[in-house]
Amino acid sequence: MTRALTPKGAATRLKIIEGAAEEIRENGVAVTTLDDVRVRTRTSKSQLFHYFPEGKEELLLAVARYEAERVLSDQQPQLGALTSWAAWQAWRDIVVDRYRRQGQYCPLNSLVSQLGRSTPGAQAVVTELVGQWQAEITAGVRHMQAIGEVDPALDAGRTASSILAGVQGGVLLLLSTGHIGHLEAALDTSIEHLRRSRPAPAGGVAAHRG
Amino acid sequence: MTRALTPKGAATRLKIIEGAAEEIRENGVAVTTLDDVRVRTRTSKSQLFHYFPEGKEELLLAVARYEAERVLSDQQPQLGALTSWAAWQAWRDIVVDRYRRQGQYCPLNSLVSQLGRSTPGAQAVVTELVGQWQAEITAGVRHMQAIGEVDPALDAGRTASSILAGVQGGVLLLLSTGHIGHLEAALDTSIEHLRRSRPAPAGGVAAHRG
Repeated sequence: MTRALTPKGAATRLKIIEGAAEEIRENGVAVTTLDDVRVRTRTSKSQLFHYFPEGKEELLLAVARYEAERVLSDQQPQLGALTSWAAWQAWRDIVVDRYRRQGQYCPLNSLVSQLGRSTPGAQAVVTELVGQWQAEITAGVRHMQAIGEVDPALDAGRTASSILAGVQGGVLLLLSTGHIGHLEAALDTSIEHLRRSRPAPAGGVAAHRG
Repeated sequence: MTRALTPKGAATRLKIIEGAAEEIRENGVAVTTLDDVRVRTRTSKSQLFHYFPEGKEELLLAVARYEAERVLSDQQPQLGALTSWAAWQAWRDIVVDRYRRQGQYCPLNSLVSQLGRSTPGAQAVVTELVGQWQAEITAGVRHMQAIGEVDPALDAGRTASSILAGVQGGVLLLLSTGHIGHLEAALDTSIEHLRRSRPAPAGGVAAHRG
């Protein structure tokens, strides 16, 4: 999406996106105008037009992409190193903490709603975020399988997909009801599901399969 | 919320809500006006004002409540009778089928977004829906515990909360990406989690607890 920019151009473009993201976090996407962004980032109309020739929607999409990257980077380094039960627990804790602090306003959710959840641009941003997020969780499940802590018969990608659904639903229910209990329950139950799947040690009895 | 109405009054009010719900399902909440609703339901301005004196927002809230009730009634009788693994599977199938048919437009999600997800009115509708939905799933988990199919040590309410989060997240990901796989994975993994928890038959070995 990004055109080839000089380093200085790329820095200016990023400054605009960061300023727009702050403006939207403070005041909401509905009331934020291009003029608000210009004032906050000290850019001219022609600069804004140069970097976002298609106007507000193009800028909002860039901010959505920026916020989506932040969703992942806020979970690092824990998300990228799900290599022990302690690591899974640490990841669970930072996810809960991030969304508890964020509370009932989620900039990415607002941006996606504003752009239209099923428009191609918004859909591409979310699909990429979901793909990367799921790939990280899948790698974590595979690692636990490789070290014998999770049943190798579990489909790692599908398990990761279900964990991600639980996180998304927990966050949506936090936004909609103000309660974080669903997010905690989803993460705890997911980890418990992985733990309970652990094959019995060699010579022991096989885990009961129901 | 509803004032005491004569049976005829209640019928007229419901006719308006149903008509508004259809209008919103067909054209989206953003473009639906009170005049569209009046034309479709053949009601006068004074009738509309009589039943919804606070105007569009009051009507949208009533439609949100109506759509929330539909979310639950569409899952019956299966949701209310989660009394065997076959019943859980049947419930899983109708949930997936309902949302697959619904596709990428969810009237309740749109209404809640339009009203403002964290406004008291919208929050009350979602909180009530979530409470009822979770109570039904909890009853199902408890039943399976009572007949010895699910580990009695599982916290039924918390497990139900996590199942519901998975469903919500699966639906949100369907709306955002067009893929239903997350919803299927969430439901399948939840049911698998319950099944794997089953205590070993008397005289057998205990389920491995990880």
